[in-house]
Amino acid sequence: MATVAVARVAPRGRLALVGLGPGARDLLAPRAVAELRRASVVVGLDQYLDQIRDLLRPGTKVIASGLGQEEQRARTAVRAAEAGHAVALVGSGDAGVYAMAGPALELADERIDVVVVPGITAGLAAAGLLGAPIAHDHAVISLSDLNTPWEVIERRIAAAAKGDFVVTFYNPRSRGRDWQLGAALDILRRHRPPGTPVGVVRHASRPGERIELTTIAAVDVTGVDMSCVVVVGSSNTRVRGGRMVTPREYRWLPR
Amino acid sequence: MATVAVARVAPRGRLALVGLGPGARDLLAPRAVAELRRASVVVGLDQYLDQIRDLLRPGTKVIASGLGQEEQRARTAVRAAEAGHAVALVGSGDAGVYAMAGPALELADERIDVVVVPGITAGLAAAGLLGAPIAHDHAVISLSDLNTPWEVIERRIAAAAKGDFVVTFYNPRSRGRDWQLGAALDILRRHRPPGTPVGVVRHASRPGERIELTTIAAVDVTGVDMSCVVVVGSSNTRVRGGRMVTPREYRWLPR
Repeated sequence: MATVAVARVAPRGRLALVGLGPGARDLLAPRAVAELRRASVVVGLDQYLDQIRDLLRPGTKVIASGLGQEEQRARTAVRAAEAGHAVALVGSGDAGVYAMAGPALELADERIDVVVVPGITAGLAAAGLLGAPIAHDHAVISLSDLNTPWEVIERRIAAAAKGDFVVTFYNPRSRGRDWQLGAALDILRRHRPPGTPVGVVRHASRPGERIELTTIAAVDVTGVDMSCVVVVGSSNTRVRGGRMVTPREYRWLPR
Repeated sequence: MATVAVARVAPRGRLALVGLGPGARDLLAPRAVAELRRASVVVGLDQYLDQIRDLLRPGTKVIASGLGQEEQRARTAVRAAEAGHAVALVGSGDAGVYAMAGPALELADERIDVVVVPGITAGLAAAGLLGAPIAHDHAVISLSDLNTPWEVIERRIAAAAKGDFVVTFYNPRSRGRDWQLGAALDILRRHRPPGTPVGVVRHASRPGERIELTTIAAVDVTGVDMSCVVVVGSSNTRVRGGRMVTPREYRWLPR
């Protein structure tokens, strides 16, 4: 019998960077669900994987790791895709906002197909619970100085203050980083009236959700942790009917 | 026969401010679909309503209007809710970002229940198509000076430039507003190297989607219109494997 030489070509790998949304199952996009079902390997933070384990196909390899293990997650996902697997690297909110899409794309080369599935961020979910605070120009700033020098963060807060942006703070406060939020609010207080609305939303769209609407003068940072998003209004932001609203400056609206 | 006096109490109205996402059906959140099915009255811009007409229950009253009729949409929706209807006021992306949730909440009073259903914005969809440009701090600015004075917008762009934010421009250019994007880029050019990556995404996730990755020196604004989102990198943003990435400054990533 003649033997036929068959070139063994590894299948082209696929890396899907999947945003899981803020937490509620009904805020998870169908495209994200489809990517999770397609994946043979799913990589992510343990607490996020627990949210979506029931959506995976039987036999899917799940590689969970903890906080601070971003490098391991990115490298593991990219390597598995380079080996020809269909990989989903998941993150909460949108995979491209303070999440794993950035580092994974920096490591990935052109031998794999990459797709980013956008998701509803914690910032958007928090804004919707507060009202419509980011209906006009806004800035999003992480207060974590683990990888970004505080001077850079401080410069951004000062710029956002001068530009009168509504500001959404991510990673506002943890046990080890307990003074940054206070410092950030102090910068904004120099540029905004004491009555400027501030919203603190914890666990947006998840069990234990908590919504607090206060002012920049009165906000108590001690209840704020890493599960919170803090939204500080611009000088135009107001409270209407118990909701935080930044006007789009339509002339036909009440002043 | 004795007659019984029955107090006719109008049912409590419900106003759902529903973000339809960037356009693709599989990026529409199930919660948005549920609100559309619940509604007896749906109000929105004609082109957005066409996207979701098939999701509505038979008999749902659909009130479509055109661009520039924001006042009519907001008032119509609020009045219908105040009359006791279940109303969905829809908008593309997230209903709270440059959309109808703001004006509607300004008009609504406390006699109705209001719920905001967040959605994936055009900015997030565009970012995912470009790579991960907003993986770090970013600002979102509308270049429409129809309701906001240009001086305010200009001040915001200058502030975002000084703060080295990645900037996402909404409403970048129309036939009647053809110079604002150029002026905005000129401000950013003073603070960023000529090679700073710029992404222009038209019709993100919709038919006719177009993705252009260029630089702040080379970007051609003449192809930009109101269906585009323009993302300008920070001084750290780079192109890796044909994708726009803003590093999160992890020490383990290649420099």
